[in-house]
Amino acid sequence: MAKIAPLSGFPEWLPAGRLVEQEVLDTLRRTFELHAFSSIETRAVEPVERLLSKGETSKEIYLLRRLQAGEGNDKDELGLHFDLTVPLARYVLENAGHLDFPFRRYQIQKVWRGERPQDGRFREFIQADVDVVGQDTLAFHHEIELPLVMVDALSKLPIPRVRIHASNRKVAQGFYEAIGIEDVEQTLRIVDKLDKVGPEIVAELLARDVNATPDQARLTLELAQIQSADASFADKIASFGLSSDLLDEGLNELVALVEGANALIPGSVVADLKIARGLDYYTGSVYESVMEGHEDLGSVCSGGRYDSLVSDGKRTFPGVGLSIGVSRILARIIGKNVVTPSRKVPTAVLVAVNDETERPHAEKTAFELRARGIATEVSPSSAKFGRQIRYADRRGIPFVWFSTEDGEQVKDIRSGEQTSADTSTWEPPAQDLRPILRAEEN
Amino acid sequence: MAKIAPLSGFPEWLPAGRLVEQEVLDTLRRTFELHAFSSIETRAVEPVERLLSKGETSKEIYLLRRLQAGEGNDKDELGLHFDLTVPLARYVLENAGHLDFPFRRYQIQKVWRGERPQDGRFREFIQADVDVVGQDTLAFHHEIELPLVMVDALSKLPIPRVRIHASNRKVAQGFYEAIGIEDVEQTLRIVDKLDKVGPEIVAELLARDVNATPDQARLTLELAQIQSADASFADKIASFGLSSDLLDEGLNELVALVEGANALIPGSVVADLKIARGLDYYTGSVYESVMEGHEDLGSVCSGGRYDSLVSDGKRTFPGVGLSIGVSRILARIIGKNVVTPSRKVPTAVLVAVNDETERPHAEKTAFELRARGIATEVSPSSAKFGRQIRYADRRGIPFVWFSTEDGEQVKDIRSGEQTSADTSTWEPPAQDLRPILRAEEN
Repeated sequence: MAKIAPLSGFPEWLPAGRLVEQEVLDTLRRTFELHAFSSIETRAVEPVERLLSKGETSKEIYLLRRLQAGEGNDKDELGLHFDLTVPLARYVLENAGHLDFPFRRYQIQKVWRGERPQDGRFREFIQADVDVVGQDTLAFHHEIELPLVMVDALSKLPIPRVRIHASNRKVAQGFYEAIGIEDVEQTLRIVDKLDKVGPEIVAELLARDVNATPDQARLTLELAQIQSADASFADKIASFGLSSDLLDEGLNELVALVEGANALIPGSVVADLKIARGLDYYTGSVYESVMEGHEDLGSVCSGGRYDSLVSDGKRTFPGVGLSIGVSRILARIIGKNVVTPSRKVPTAVLVAVNDETERPHAEKTAFELRARGIATEVSPSSAKFGRQIRYADRRGIPFVWFSTEDGEQVKDIRSGEQTSADTSTWEPPAQDLRPILRAEEN
Repeated sequence: MAKIAPLSGFPEWLPAGRLVEQEVLDTLRRTFELHAFSSIETRAVEPVERLLSKGETSKEIYLLRRLQAGEGNDKDELGLHFDLTVPLARYVLENAGHLDFPFRRYQIQKVWRGERPQDGRFREFIQADVDVVGQDTLAFHHEIELPLVMVDALSKLPIPRVRIHASNRKVAQGFYEAIGIEDVEQTLRIVDKLDKVGPEIVAELLARDVNATPDQARLTLELAQIQSADASFADKIASFGLSSDLLDEGLNELVALVEGANALIPGSVVADLKIARGLDYYTGSVYESVMEGHEDLGSVCSGGRYDSLVSDGKRTFPGVGLSIGVSRILARIIGKNVVTPSRKVPTAVLVAVNDETERPHAEKTAFELRARGIATEVSPSSAKFGRQIRYADRRGIPFVWFSTEDGEQVKDIRSGEQTSADTSTWEPPAQDLRPILRAEEN
């Protein structure tokens, strides 16, 4: 039998950590629904050729094979999805006749990648995505709306502030073309590495891989260093004196995004011209974001505008969406105890059992409390009171309910205060009804 | 590219069906937490040898292989879990030092089986499990408690009544041994088929596979036909005049279960002596259950007592648990429209946009309503009012918010009633705040 040990890259939590995870997922879901997004959940598997259609990611896929199918006997035709965008594209095409466009969907699910696990990178992890998908057309204003949905959601989590850094693919492409760089895609992929490798290496890669002259490399790096919390970035770009319709269109969009977003939620979006996003399919706004004080984690929420999520020849479905790397955030806040729950069980009340003949009465008490929304456990043993109280104490259960000769009593085991109580009226203080999350100072 | 088509055995829902699924899962979770169970979520994969350690199920497992690992180059060491019991056993052993026993856990997750899909049987499906796991010992009263948790949870769903049918492994084993049948395990597996194949075939199989005499087969079938909603089954079994300590112990437990459960929730548990459960590891109470009017679906909630969920040589972990086949229930109530949501989006209000220059004002209105818990969407276009109202109507959004020369107005598009409104005070009626589920008559 295999040794019992954690599997690297497959994070799991103890019940206390799971409480943090549930609260985080609940908050995201609640916020997405307040913003009028519908939930969908897609199967974990897609046909392999659909997973491979994006090209670059082939190495990360887990293929499925039924054990009984035998070696080499199966077509390996199914693989686990590695993101929630490929499944969304397939779902939209499969169900287009039953969906209303623009289709506003959120999706919170696990995805799997066969990559080597590292800090903040897992083989199994949770993503939380929101996308708006249009049929044939999709208005620009959704490119302002979507990052604000994420800022609103992330601001409700017990985590440090997350701010969206945005650029626009049209700005980059218009700029590169205006200075004479031909391979725009490759240039974007190189600039995307700037934070990791630094400007010198980026300049070298630009010279080597896209034949950039020193001037072209310098201008590319100068563009990438522009950042502003308001529209002033546009003046800096104007000072290059370049002329391009695409560049102008992109600048107008990026100005509208930064101004529109910050008018609704001040400080939410920063123009950051180094944001490139390596993926080919973005065509307008692109977004990344970091958690303040945890920049080493990399982007925790990314996405962009794509003019064709998917097409069936007759119809094309453009969209804009962002994805939160939930597990990356959770690993940091649970793993390092940044956030802990006020207790590690849902239980508010333990009903003590004097002796086993009174267990049915205790069970009835528990049912009455539960019917009023109070999470209640009956003591598993009729041991001495002291032991039953220690049982509650170890789990952080705040109240113990007793049946005494003088009637029903409830004790707050933290203060020791004990009062008469009735199952039809007694309530714990609101802050004790459910576990609540606390951000720790460390 | 693969043709876009549903994959047999991998159910997915449209957004309206997903609303039903979410409400069902939320209700189960809420009830399990009221009963003081902690949530855990385990990784989707386990080492294959651990999945195979139960024997019988090997043919159903999906193995994982990384695409880049190449054919035959991988050890196929990971597989997708096919239930939530194997992962629980591993989790308990891995984390025993950090858990409090008895450990009360619930777990709602997808599982995968490579079986041929049939009505009510899927390759990917959701299970909802509750278990209490002790260290070395576990009191019998949990065998009364656990089926009641499930009855409580299932009774809150918008589905026909589900009643638990229970027997006890000790009764079956004691009875078979007392009448001289030696191969108890095989006898249980044959009796387990009674509902499917009928008594004649069972009698034949008993003769063929466990060398049962006609008398032994007859007695076995007579036991299997005993059923009662109270303790009267025990008198019928006593009338066989058999003597066995194990039989007596099992009868006492089954009487305690039926009487104890029905005292707390009348009509919740029926003694049904044909319940065998094919699996070897049950040692006490065993449970199955059917949804009234949907008996063809088979058991929708099953489980039992096991004296050794898992052991590391030093410690043994006994438990009792039940599992709800959530997807089996959902496929019936969503697939056949037994239950539908009052609308197919979370949205309560659509904020109309007079023209694009007023979009920022509409966005601000929406943010103010959301801050007060009202799910709100801003109209994606500034088309004519009639079109914006049709947009809301198609989605079932009950209210449209207007900005007029006379101030802010809100219209109930079902009644046509329009009133002045203020984002800081207006509220939709409680039944319109969120989609609610309706059981249809068909």
